[in-house]
Amino acid sequence: MEFDRRQVATLVLGSAASVSLVSAASAQGDPLPSWNDGAAKEAIVKFVHATTDAASPQFVPVAERVATFDQDGTLWVEHPIYTQLVYCFDRVPALVKAHPELAKAEPFRTVLTGDREAIAKLGLEPLLKVVAATLTGIDVDTFRDEVASWIKDARDPRWKRPYTELVYQPQIELLKYLRGFGYRTYIVTGGGQDFVRVYAEETYGIPPEQVVGSAGAVSYQYGAKGPVLIKEPKLLLNDDNAGKPEGIHLMIGRKPYFAIGNSTGDRQMLEYAKAGTGARLAMLVLHDDGAREYAYGPAQGLPDTKVGTFTQELYDEATKDGWIVVSMKNDWKRVFAFD
Amino acid sequence: MEFDRRQVATLVLGSAASVSLVSAASAQGDPLPSWNDGAAKEAIVKFVHATTDAASPQFVPVAERVATFDQDGTLWVEHPIYTQLVYCFDRVPALVKAHPELAKAEPFRTVLTGDREAIAKLGLEPLLKVVAATLTGIDVDTFRDEVASWIKDARDPRWKRPYTELVYQPQIELLKYLRGFGYRTYIVTGGGQDFVRVYAEETYGIPPEQVVGSAGAVSYQYGAKGPVLIKEPKLLLNDDNAGKPEGIHLMIGRKPYFAIGNSTGDRQMLEYAKAGTGARLAMLVLHDDGAREYAYGPAQGLPDTKVGTFTQELYDEATKDGWIVVSMKNDWKRVFAFD
Repeated sequence: MEFDRRQVATLVLGSAASVSLVSAASAQGDPLPSWNDGAAKEAIVKFVHATTDAASPQFVPVAERVATFDQDGTLWVEHPIYTQLVYCFDRVPALVKAHPELAKAEPFRTVLTGDREAIAKLGLEPLLKVVAATLTGIDVDTFRDEVASWIKDARDPRWKRPYTELVYQPQIELLKYLRGFGYRTYIVTGGGQDFVRVYAEETYGIPPEQVVGSAGAVSYQYGAKGPVLIKEPKLLLNDDNAGKPEGIHLMIGRKPYFAIGNSTGDRQMLEYAKAGTGARLAMLVLHDDGAREYAYGPAQGLPDTKVGTFTQELYDEATKDGWIVVSMKNDWKRVFAFD
Repeated sequence: MEFDRRQVATLVLGSAASVSLVSAASAQGDPLPSWNDGAAKEAIVKFVHATTDAASPQFVPVAERVATFDQDGTLWVEHPIYTQLVYCFDRVPALVKAHPELAKAEPFRTVLTGDREAIAKLGLEPLLKVVAATLTGIDVDTFRDEVASWIKDARDPRWKRPYTELVYQPQIELLKYLRGFGYRTYIVTGGGQDFVRVYAEETYGIPPEQVVGSAGAVSYQYGAKGPVLIKEPKLLLNDDNAGKPEGIHLMIGRKPYFAIGNSTGDRQMLEYAKAGTGARLAMLVLHDDGAREYAYGPAQGLPDTKVGTFTQELYDEATKDGWIVVSMKNDWKRVFAFD
């Protein structure tokens, strides 16, 4: 868990210190340098001051300061396909080596060919078969080691960089900014909880216990070296759509004051955050920057790519309910740290 | 979340400060005054120093300091029956008022008579029917309000005090002591997560996100005043026995360094904690003090009461594997704050 000096100061000195801390922060320069001046940045700063300034009628005690972030498409790149799916495909050769009978069985045979077009045509059911086979039947410690090793070595084909470098710099600043004011930042992702936990602390400064994700059952068993937890092919929590507020209740038990996502899968999480009393901020990242990243919607006439879908209906709900739509093109000065 | 000065000092100054902090703590007097000197108290102090002293070969970084506490029979009284069951029984009249057809249906009819002997004879299945009916079909906010109101007014028949006063003073000191050295203290209970979260912060200093308990599914729905989460009669996590390490993995994602329980339902949690590397402490509270509290086992020839069962087999596993058995009679100077 990351504690910067300002956060510790808030904890030691109590909430009354926040006013002077805000001025101190301003004096130290812009805490969100990768955000362009505009409505989105202004909404963030206004929200933080409203909820952490002891003199504010909307002041929120430190213990209740919860901020939830979707991951894929909100914190890091999700195109052309989710990184965790790349992991699953990359695991198939090792899986087939351990279970040779799978080499001739679909969909593993097709995945082994490496033919991207044929793989893309597989459809959802065969895809889920690959996901289940590569993410389960293994103890949680071995799984963690394998993901850690993969995430270190794998490279995104477009940028030729580790996936963990394809995180959005403005969001890294936003996470730190919120934490600096006593917010606990959580990831709430449709991706696998065990998968994201492996790199979340180093990549986002978010510890394992603050990663809420889709979670499979594990079973406690006695292995050769003692007790182990085996990942079972049984879904406990599908942490997408309505599953997001349901997962937040299960894992945190508090309604977030701040929530940000980028697709229809985040709709209910944002509604849930906004349903609370006091100042609540809901935001959606719109991928409208095909040059620096990817352009997809189909909201606002952007291409409908089926990955990270942001419908016009969601855009209209955002406008109607006072959610802030973040334009990657206009609101972000830079997208990646390496830009 | 409670941050005492020593914990904040550790966060600010880093781990190197712990040595002098330990001396400072000793100079300030005994942090565990309700514990008698003996093997149990010694094991606790030794464990804390081994894992938090920067010079120790078994030093554990702050982020990884996780301690898990069972609740019923470990933090508060569980006899003659679990407090949450008393809540369920007490809810039956209101339930029948809302659903009059239940008045003549078993097991509700029997519960309504208030005949304790007849209720005790109901058996597990009818009991679970009462539990499901009184804990579900309601939104989480209303449930929280109802539990909060009940826990304020309800009185234990023996001590004529609120149940939240029937917490063990030595354990309150132990929780604070561990937190003072940077440990995050979690409750890991077979009881309902939503139930325990209502009073855990005020009673134990443990915030909602650090309560791991048996959890039912909730469903996201649109109510008259906006989104609500309805408690469904579907069990997601049975947080007892093997469910305890499974729940710890789901909710925390780290192996505890310290774990304490009091019954066979805690066995796997303690095994799991002890399976980790470095210094790990597993403890079991033995209820051998019929005068100040209750006496039950059946370990060590104590009565077998079926509530909070501590078998001789568990006692033998504890002895064999270096777990510490805490005798309430001999290790605790006093049991309750009001003693």
